[in-house]
Amino acid sequence: MPRYKLVIEYDGAPFCGWQRQADDPTVQAAIETAVTRFSGEAARLTCAGRTDAGVHAIHQVAHLDLAKAWRTDTVRDALNAHLRPQPVSILSAEVVGPDFDARHSAIRRHYRYRILNRRSPAALTRAHVWHVPWPLDADLMQAAAQRLLGRHDFSAFRAAECQAKSPVRTLEQLDVTRQRMGLFEEIVIATSARSFLHHQVRAMAGTLMLAGCKRLSADDVAEILATRAKHRCGPLAPACGLTFVGVDYGQTR
Amino acid sequence: MPRYKLVIEYDGAPFCGWQRQADDPTVQAAIETAVTRFSGEAARLTCAGRTDAGVHAIHQVAHLDLAKAWRTDTVRDALNAHLRPQPVSILSAEVVGPDFDARHSAIRRHYRYRILNRRSPAALTRAHVWHVPWPLDADLMQAAAQRLLGRHDFSAFRAAECQAKSPVRTLEQLDVTRQRMGLFEEIVIATSARSFLHHQVRAMAGTLMLAGCKRLSADDVAEILATRAKHRCGPLAPACGLTFVGVDYGQTR
Repeated sequence: MPRYKLVIEYDGAPFCGWQRQADDPTVQAAIETAVTRFSGEAARLTCAGRTDAGVHAIHQVAHLDLAKAWRTDTVRDALNAHLRPQPVSILSAEVVGPDFDARHSAIRRHYRYRILNRRSPAALTRAHVWHVPWPLDADLMQAAAQRLLGRHDFSAFRAAECQAKSPVRTLEQLDVTRQRMGLFEEIVIATSARSFLHHQVRAMAGTLMLAGCKRLSADDVAEILATRAKHRCGPLAPACGLTFVGVDYGQTR
Repeated sequence: MPRYKLVIEYDGAPFCGWQRQADDPTVQAAIETAVTRFSGEAARLTCAGRTDAGVHAIHQVAHLDLAKAWRTDTVRDALNAHLRPQPVSILSAEVVGPDFDARHSAIRRHYRYRILNRRSPAALTRAHVWHVPWPLDADLMQAAAQRLLGRHDFSAFRAAECQAKSPVRTLEQLDVTRQRMGLFEEIVIATSARSFLHHQVRAMAGTLMLAGCKRLSADDVAEILATRAKHRCGPLAPACGLTFVGVDYGQTR
């Protein structure tokens, strides 16, 4: 019974997140339906990072088991044919060993959060950025971000409905840079960790936004973390600005 | 009667092009309606490059005359408020002299054409690229592109309905580069000229695609140009891959 590893790109806008739900369209359900249509088998996908409603991915990874051994190019192309016209694209399929688990073998997840920081609203990129019209200082955001690095109790940056057993996570990267692309004026937040709490990246992005407009100092952000002062965090940054950009696997793969 | 110069970004997908039509939604009509709602005046916009249905812009320029002198920030913000939720954004407004004409003062237009060149379809960028699934050689495309530079009769790359008086144009730039952004694998065509014929950029992009998969040589492309052999051109590349990226004005501005 071969196990297949899929690399997946999707636009989160029309989906109620990754995870299968009873009635709402999800990325997992879209791909599982395509699997059944192409192979005749019922299959269950496990992914590296279960994204929320509206969150995008350019490099999600999932695995599934099928009774039949298919050519991997056939798996990729057949799934893409059956996914059409939904904005989900299987970038690659490969056969992996039975010990590979897209979720549990992952040692690092990477996310990117995009803020369009200019007075005028987004037009071309409106589905992929958070529009913040007042000026943000990316250097102040970067300084505050560095205070969140390392192993901490991230309860301040955790959704009420988060199901993780522990609020402790080790944040490995949180870098804020301003990227001028003509008049796009984006602030990009790149972050990496073994795993994140539910809403953690968006809560951090909203709080860094407040640091960028001087409503919070870097010390304030450190204090919010230390005292788990969720009420002092910034707004939860909207889902559409967030993209799952990659996942690292250890050598057991 | 002050004249205002507007810089405009828009997503071409929901519009039947720039130019006002009797019944269909256009970018010009959207902005003119917003002008009337905000100022109470009927205004007529003139733009640098009248884009076709589905073509995007990140830096379109237009001018309009209003009886009243407004603060330019007010013009920009009020238009954006009235344009909402349409994907049209006024990036800036400034007062210019009466001799400035967004169309006739322009000395150079810049366009970009994006090809997603990978086996799997587009998901996140599907509204902004042409998906070509077979391998393209960007170096061959670039070599062929250089044969189109300069002053020529571009009848081979002209729409049947093109209304220009002359098919002669001077192509100043046509550069093809492969840009690897993770698994995006885009081929970007950047082109500049004082002006272009109707469909010229998309016709050149479709023909360069054939050069990239070796169905046309650089010599073939030069011959198509010289003999005006429209029937030997590649397919008209789809509108969604094309973006108007800028315009240069001379010193009379």
